[in-house]
Amino acid sequence: MDSLEESINEDLIKERAQCSFDVSELTYFLDDGKENTEQRRKFEKIVFSFKELKDPVSEEYLSHKEKYENAIRKSCLLVKITKENFPDIESEMTEKLGINGIPARVAQAVKDVPSFLVHFGLFVPTIIGQGDAEQLSYWLPRALDMNIIGAYVQTELGHGTYVRGLETTATYDPETEEFVLNSPTLTSYKWWPGGLGCTANHCIVMAQLYTKEQCHGVHNFVVQIRDEETHMPRMGVRVGEIGPKMGLNTTDNGFLEFQNYRVPRKAMLMKNAKVLKDGTYVKPANEKLTYGTMVYVRVSLVSEVALHLAKATTIAIRYSAVRRQSKLKLDEPELQILDYTTQQHKLFICLATSYALDMAGKWLWKTYKKVSRDIGHGKTDSLPELHALACCLKAISTADAAACIEKCRLACGGHGYMSSSNLPLLYGLITATCTYEGDNTVLLLQTARYLVKAWNREENAIDVKSTVSYLHLAYNNRYEKWDNTTENIIIGLQIVAAGKISSSVKSLNKRVEKGLAYEDAWNLTSVQLTRAAEAHCRAVLVNTYWAETQRRTATLSSSLRVVLQTLAELYVVYWALETIGDLLQFTNISENHIVELRARYEHLLTRLRPDAVGIVDAFDFTDELLNSTLGAYDGRVYERLMAEALRSPLNAEPVNRTFHTHLKPLMQGKL
Amino acid sequence: MDSLEESINEDLIKERAQCSFDVSELTYFLDDGKENTEQRRKFEKIVFSFKELKDPVSEEYLSHKEKYENAIRKSCLLVKITKENFPDIESEMTEKLGINGIPARVAQAVKDVPSFLVHFGLFVPTIIGQGDAEQLSYWLPRALDMNIIGAYVQTELGHGTYVRGLETTATYDPETEEFVLNSPTLTSYKWWPGGLGCTANHCIVMAQLYTKEQCHGVHNFVVQIRDEETHMPRMGVRVGEIGPKMGLNTTDNGFLEFQNYRVPRKAMLMKNAKVLKDGTYVKPANEKLTYGTMVYVRVSLVSEVALHLAKATTIAIRYSAVRRQSKLKLDEPELQILDYTTQQHKLFICLATSYALDMAGKWLWKTYKKVSRDIGHGKTDSLPELHALACCLKAISTADAAACIEKCRLACGGHGYMSSSNLPLLYGLITATCTYEGDNTVLLLQTARYLVKAWNREENAIDVKSTVSYLHLAYNNRYEKWDNTTENIIIGLQIVAAGKISSSVKSLNKRVEKGLAYEDAWNLTSVQLTRAAEAHCRAVLVNTYWAETQRRTATLSSSLRVVLQTLAELYVVYWALETIGDLLQFTNISENHIVELRARYEHLLTRLRPDAVGIVDAFDFTDELLNSTLGAYDGRVYERLMAEALRSPLNAEPVNRTFHTHLKPLMQGKL
Repeated sequence: MDSLEESINEDLIKERAQCSFDVSELTYFLDDGKENTEQRRKFEKIVFSFKELKDPVSEEYLSHKEKYENAIRKSCLLVKITKENFPDIESEMTEKLGINGIPARVAQAVKDVPSFLVHFGLFVPTIIGQGDAEQLSYWLPRALDMNIIGAYVQTELGHGTYVRGLETTATYDPETEEFVLNSPTLTSYKWWPGGLGCTANHCIVMAQLYTKEQCHGVHNFVVQIRDEETHMPRMGVRVGEIGPKMGLNTTDNGFLEFQNYRVPRKAMLMKNAKVLKDGTYVKPANEKLTYGTMVYVRVSLVSEVALHLAKATTIAIRYSAVRRQSKLKLDEPELQILDYTTQQHKLFICLATSYALDMAGKWLWKTYKKVSRDIGHGKTDSLPELHALACCLKAISTADAAACIEKCRLACGGHGYMSSSNLPLLYGLITATCTYEGDNTVLLLQTARYLVKAWNREENAIDVKSTVSYLHLAYNNRYEKWDNTTENIIIGLQIVAAGKISSSVKSLNKRVEKGLAYEDAWNLTSVQLTRAAEAHCRAVLVNTYWAETQRRTATLSSSLRVVLQTLAELYVVYWALETIGDLLQFTNISENHIVELRARYEHLLTRLRPDAVGIVDAFDFTDELLNSTLGAYDGRVYERLMAEALRSPLNAEPVNRTFHTHLKPLMQGKL
Repeated sequence: MDSLEESINEDLIKERAQCSFDVSELTYFLDDGKENTEQRRKFEKIVFSFKELKDPVSEEYLSHKEKYENAIRKSCLLVKITKENFPDIESEMTEKLGINGIPARVAQAVKDVPSFLVHFGLFVPTIIGQGDAEQLSYWLPRALDMNIIGAYVQTELGHGTYVRGLETTATYDPETEEFVLNSPTLTSYKWWPGGLGCTANHCIVMAQLYTKEQCHGVHNFVVQIRDEETHMPRMGVRVGEIGPKMGLNTTDNGFLEFQNYRVPRKAMLMKNAKVLKDGTYVKPANEKLTYGTMVYVRVSLVSEVALHLAKATTIAIRYSAVRRQSKLKLDEPELQILDYTTQQHKLFICLATSYALDMAGKWLWKTYKKVSRDIGHGKTDSLPELHALACCLKAISTADAAACIEKCRLACGGHGYMSSSNLPLLYGLITATCTYEGDNTVLLLQTARYLVKAWNREENAIDVKSTVSYLHLAYNNRYEKWDNTTENIIIGLQIVAAGKISSSVKSLNKRVEKGLAYEDAWNLTSVQLTRAAEAHCRAVLVNTYWAETQRRTATLSSSLRVVLQTLAELYVVYWALETIGDLLQFTNISENHIVELRARYEHLLTRLRPDAVGIVDAFDFTDELLNSTLGAYDGRVYERLMAEALRSPLNAEPVNRTFHTHLKPLMQGKL
């Protein structure tokens, strides 16, 4: 394989030569500055210089147990390397928690090995968000130094979405000043938490708090579950791993049962609610503050899926430049599949989506920080809007990313089905985000609830918040003359959202007027309501992507600016065509406009074609991060596929033992 | 786990009690008769009585190599059981080739263990379809008795879709009366064939035939690749396994390289084309006859994916009846998730789709047999239409089935992500069908090519074939008054198809008029063309499903008839709403009609709700075939999930060894 590094596929050389812009300029743009790019590259170079981080054989060849063990080996090594080479990274992670700019990429390289993902991604942030000063000073240094390893334990066998239905109990005993944890039913077993099965010795447990014979709902407790010296589960704790999954199989998702397990009073995280020594329950100053962590995780998911989608797109576009298949004309060579319009149609929207989600993720992160600052100053009135926004953006960005990654995989034909392409693994990883941190349908209905309220306020002419401020304007302008400018299309998509919210509210009210209870009417209207929330989110995404592109590309070279604006325009036109039925229902768009839009879309594909490889090169993923036979920088696809196949343990011997034990007897009729 | 068998989940008991029809009647209907059901049940009972066919632990726990070995063990055993207990099954398979009615289900139970899937599904049929009398009598008994095990070897590293581009050569040497097989390039290595890696000792190889210095294109050769006694690859043959994939990991997909490998002249299958002893090439009487096998496999895929989708639907609907989550009203118990309209919206269309594809598959199979009989009598004029139909039905049915299975999985939330739900495995299996036997996009473009021809004939008023006979009528009636009857919606979808074909042809012609070569114009219009082919196929599917339901349910009890018609109606209305943009563009549907359709759709969901469990029960899958913790007949979901988790090898010891080697040193800062 070493000789691979010597030469680059000729088609890729041509692609790179024809690129119309400076790839480095785009990389710096994506990293928010050249310094960030250099810092990230330095980090990646050091990390990937450790040969021990490379798998001797692909993880896919390993058994379930071996996968876990190999991941622990690599994760521990990675933590060590990081500590030794980047002593400041902990404070950076504490401060920025692995989001946006450089820390995003740095954190991802660390988090890519998923064993400690939950420790850094949920355990630490929850302590920061929910612990009081004493608890912070006790737990945080130990957690950041990894003297303890934590899991975040919320979901149960019987309850995921409906957090209020959790059955694990934490009953306060004032005699000993302890909480007694119990799992009263089979369905109350904790189930799913990452790292819980075999790795964590501590965890944050969500349980129904009982004190003085009263239930005060679900609260967080920091609980030690395994002995620090022996790692044996502690008395009263039963813990284990839940078995194989569609993806994430290097992570030990776990189950957990408590039987009269006692923890000290200060195990309860007490920044907001408290239980005093005598068992008195003290309510939090503001119930809404518990939204915080959930919103934080959803906000961070938008950027995370954008990054994974960027990987899938890089793999599929490079492969499509290398792969030649079929002749369009008999006397010409076979075409690069990237030259087929159907292939461009599949891939360029994925590329645009990864940019749209990246820009939306950064924008949402800024909004989140602003609202967090406000909360710090006691202002919580923006929280419901942020919550509604984070819900729908989490839902749509994870669903879009998963769909796009699968589209990339299918666009690579049979070879995309090979694990060595890395596309199946990326899909397995990202499709999980459609379910965790709130099932997407449930999240859309939460946004819908906010939208219905906003609409009703709107009808009563009360001032509405910024992200829904378009509602009024859009709805009133819906019958204005249509034109096909990008700006007008965006307004069109807002009109669609407003129209769908309006008609959902109408259906809802009609059902209530007919005598149905509001809850039943809501349920019967819920398909429409999810569609309305989707339309709202699409309008926000399209608008954000377009506006941020205009704003942020102003200082770039004109050649790059044109490319980024073309990509954003493609996104807008694509979504107009996808929602043409809605535009026809809610606006004055005409048949001629549609024909023109379709031609414009086809033209945009052609304009992006020469720069496609350059745009994905600018993501600047190392081959190690892509981990794909189809997506490497040199494009030596077939050599890599063959080299990878030769590593299969089934090829280590010319004849498998089952020939003698089974096949031969079968063929000779002697089985 | 034994105690599981004693009791059935209470919610499922209630569901079954409220079912409005006789489940057995529906099962007999699906099996085409009570006798078939009984025969199938007898077969399944015997097969599943062999405990050795049950995996000691889930295959997901095994390493890549162990998965293969376990599959071979089970496959051989299954063949033995089948031979001993059902001596007639071979002749049945020869005759009906495992399609439709009873043999479908029987064959599936055999084929479910995928090691010999290609042997029976492709190797044997190709010999039957392409071998001359002498070859048939030589190869067929040996293949059916499994004295040899065959693979079907077509795809290469560099070529899948474009069969004419295959690079493997078979050069005739008249001196020795042999063909010499060679793999001249890396990209010419055979790659993908199932069973090729370690199992098969024979295969059918597609190679470019050279004789008398002339290339005559791709032909089939039966080639022995491994020694029958030792199983060692023969001299000149390099063969191995290609590594892990997104699914199908119990199958040893393989690669194959030839170096001057000699095979006798009669290795070439000579039913149609021939090479005489002196090397003279004799053309086939009719080139179109080579379509045969491809069409056959595509036809059979429609029924196959329908059956797998039925499994996924059974799992998701039973789970949704058992799973309770969230309260709609505070004073009521948590709802069965099947009572949420959004859940019904996700699952009932999957249920309807499995029925639609089952009916379409049976209908297509009848059509195929009719055309085959015609071909036997020398009539080949229906072949292009059948080919176009099989192309688009393969594309749409596999895409729909994959999308629906994934929808079922996501509708089961986190637990659907567990391998033990069997939904990830089903998705991995079925998404592969979108790629193999012709990439779906390429197949849609082949149908589009036929449609464009039919449209041009239509414009010139030449008689068109039956499945496109609607074109003329639909296009001329497009501005008639719309009404919402089911029949009119079907016509509406035909009008949409005709409209899309018409406007694609317009775009195409416009580009040609502007001076583009036809091939380039075709490429630029190809997104529209695939959409037109999709619309055509949807019209065929909707029409077939509705018409067959009317025809076939006439003799059923009225209670069952109502249910099946409601399901078919749901399918029609769903697709009307999904293509509302098209209906608005191409027909006179009004805003009021749309509002009414949406209300009707919501009403149909409510009507189907009480019978949902009964409808999936009627598929009559044994728990062994479903192989799902979420889908078993007794609905004891949580017990099964927990029992399955306890089998994880990671739970065999309380502390994993990596704690001592890695985690503890890390936590103590001594790594």
